[in-house]
Amino acid sequence: MSVTTPQGFRAAGVNAGLKASGAPDVALVVNDGPDHHAAAVFTSNRVEAAPVTWSRQAVKDGRADAVVLNSGGANACTGAQGFADTHATAEHVAEVLGVSAGDVVVCSTGLIGELLPMDKLLSGVDAAAAALSQDGGADAAVAIKTTDTVPKVAEVTRDGWSVGGMAKGAGMLAPALATMLVVLTTDALVDPAQLDGVLRAATATTFDRIDSDGCQSTNDTVVLMASGASGVQPELADLVAAVTEVCASLARQLIGDAEGASHDIAIEVVGAASVPDALEVGRAVARNNLFKAAVFGNDPNWGRVLAAVGTTAAEFDPHQLDVAINGVQVCRAGGVGEDRSLVDLAPREVRVVIDLHAGRHTATIWTNDLTHDYVHENSAYST
Amino acid sequence: MSVTTPQGFRAAGVNAGLKASGAPDVALVVNDGPDHHAAAVFTSNRVEAAPVTWSRQAVKDGRADAVVLNSGGANACTGAQGFADTHATAEHVAEVLGVSAGDVVVCSTGLIGELLPMDKLLSGVDAAAAALSQDGGADAAVAIKTTDTVPKVAEVTRDGWSVGGMAKGAGMLAPALATMLVVLTTDALVDPAQLDGVLRAATATTFDRIDSDGCQSTNDTVVLMASGASGVQPELADLVAAVTEVCASLARQLIGDAEGASHDIAIEVVGAASVPDALEVGRAVARNNLFKAAVFGNDPNWGRVLAAVGTTAAEFDPHQLDVAINGVQVCRAGGVGEDRSLVDLAPREVRVVIDLHAGRHTATIWTNDLTHDYVHENSAYST
Repeated sequence: MSVTTPQGFRAAGVNAGLKASGAPDVALVVNDGPDHHAAAVFTSNRVEAAPVTWSRQAVKDGRADAVVLNSGGANACTGAQGFADTHATAEHVAEVLGVSAGDVVVCSTGLIGELLPMDKLLSGVDAAAAALSQDGGADAAVAIKTTDTVPKVAEVTRDGWSVGGMAKGAGMLAPALATMLVVLTTDALVDPAQLDGVLRAATATTFDRIDSDGCQSTNDTVVLMASGASGVQPELADLVAAVTEVCASLARQLIGDAEGASHDIAIEVVGAASVPDALEVGRAVARNNLFKAAVFGNDPNWGRVLAAVGTTAAEFDPHQLDVAINGVQVCRAGGVGEDRSLVDLAPREVRVVIDLHAGRHTATIWTNDLTHDYVHENSAYST
Repeated sequence: MSVTTPQGFRAAGVNAGLKASGAPDVALVVNDGPDHHAAAVFTSNRVEAAPVTWSRQAVKDGRADAVVLNSGGANACTGAQGFADTHATAEHVAEVLGVSAGDVVVCSTGLIGELLPMDKLLSGVDAAAAALSQDGGADAAVAIKTTDTVPKVAEVTRDGWSVGGMAKGAGMLAPALATMLVVLTTDALVDPAQLDGVLRAATATTFDRIDSDGCQSTNDTVVLMASGASGVQPELADLVAAVTEVCASLARQLIGDAEGASHDIAIEVVGAASVPDALEVGRAVARNNLFKAAVFGNDPNWGRVLAAVGTTAAEFDPHQLDVAINGVQVCRAGGVGEDRSLVDLAPREVRVVIDLHAGRHTATIWTNDLTHDYVHENSAYST
């Protein structure tokens, strides 16, 4: 499964020695065609890593032959030398594969503000190229992990064509892309002019709606490559649905493996005057540390939900707000509803439904609780 | 010291049994005049507690004779009954003191979404009224504590007049008022039309620039009362300076006692194109959980500072950003600067200086680190 489920793709994951732990840290995904269409979306953080700057240009013409990814270093805030290193990496991949450097997407993840050990990385590229295989998706998914406890892969198979994907990310997961690297592949025949729209439609309702800790990374990249190797051209809507399904699965896996989390929380905003209103409210609650800490303590402290909703500019009347937590209507018309002690927060999955009573739009944001382990993992990352 | 330092004020703090702990929980501050001028600023949270709704109206005419405050319950999200309870509290205070209910400011703090035990509260008002004293400021400061570990008081004495104050707040400390209750007093003679401006000038650069956890309360209130009892009319600028000094002291005390914090962090943004730009950048860093957790771990992870700066719309070139932590220039021109291991994060006070190289404006936001204890305290607050 993973990125090598669709025909026309090979992948590999190897240990290049970038990580002190000795775990795999370089991955390569190659599109053998016949098509080499590609689209990508990137972090909206203005402090973007060198590989993001490079890859934006690389996919601008709608073509990519390969994606090279490394964990063990973000190559962010590394100045001119950092960009030169990304460039050299692309050139090396191009040379080994016999493609153009301008068609090589580069992704990096790890600590910000450190230069990559280029000798190790380039040797890793050689090893990955030598290991490329039509069954290599699983290895590649392992090699991009940082603090992820499990690799994240997904696939959807349709009548004669499929979509595959892999993702990494366990912290810095915020909207306008969670902090993560994602490679998606499909063997469907698709008009290259439409690929970008397919990817944006899929990410807008999936990766853009997870928010683990409100922190936005410098390196987020989601790239979709289409090989056309199946020879099947699905309806555009079917392709969007399949890519969205893979993205939704990967997004849910990212939230489920977020650093230190003990609850996955779906914040479902209903009765909104618009989708942007619903998203603003959902994100405000998802970023409220007090609410997130309360969920960690299995405390249905709904007042903190209302306090977060009240900081938004969404359309609502404070005296009409309803909040249900795991099916118990703890807040009705902005006031006290059912007894909060009826709420069972023992299950990992928590569902908070906020009814703004201002319209008929809805959106769901996924987040995590704020835990001792989150603090612990993030207080000891670079040291 | 505290609110009874200026002449013309009496205060008291008593135990009314609102708190399970048995600690003092009702405070009363009375302005005996001859002037009864007052101004107040409140939370900008649209979900505001009943006492905030009441008190906005009470001070609208620029007069207040007393402030009654209770801990042990926020009276927020309590519907019509909650407002009726606030109204009844003001009426009771008015009756006991022989003033008008419309001149009684009411403040509440504690858990959201619970009705107050009115019999206990009103008995507490009686006891507080009986205990009113020109030395009662310290008792009042104790009675408004929630998770505060220490009472917060401040005073400034000038030539013949003074300003005093008390504050509570240890979590939900965010700008556009930290989550807190503050009562300020002065015996200066001041034009009532100018009092509101004095208060807004003082809070804009003090309470509005602390941000402990990005969470904004439903109950924030800062009220300033002027008795005129000194008979001295200072220059307006001198009054603003004195009130600002008291507010700055109280704000610093709030940050120093924030829930679970082990570091107080000053985020000083310099070289900004405007003060709003500097504030936006400072707040983005102050709310970055990853950076705050790193400081807890004594980890000078400056990449997280840049990642936070990059999420703002402030004017800057990512390749010109400089960051110093406790005097060590860890990031220069958006890239690697001095060795991060040179930074000593052992002291409680941490100073992060971010130079945007975009202008000559500056602002400092105070925040705390994100700690195990923060998570612990906030996971067990209502249960």
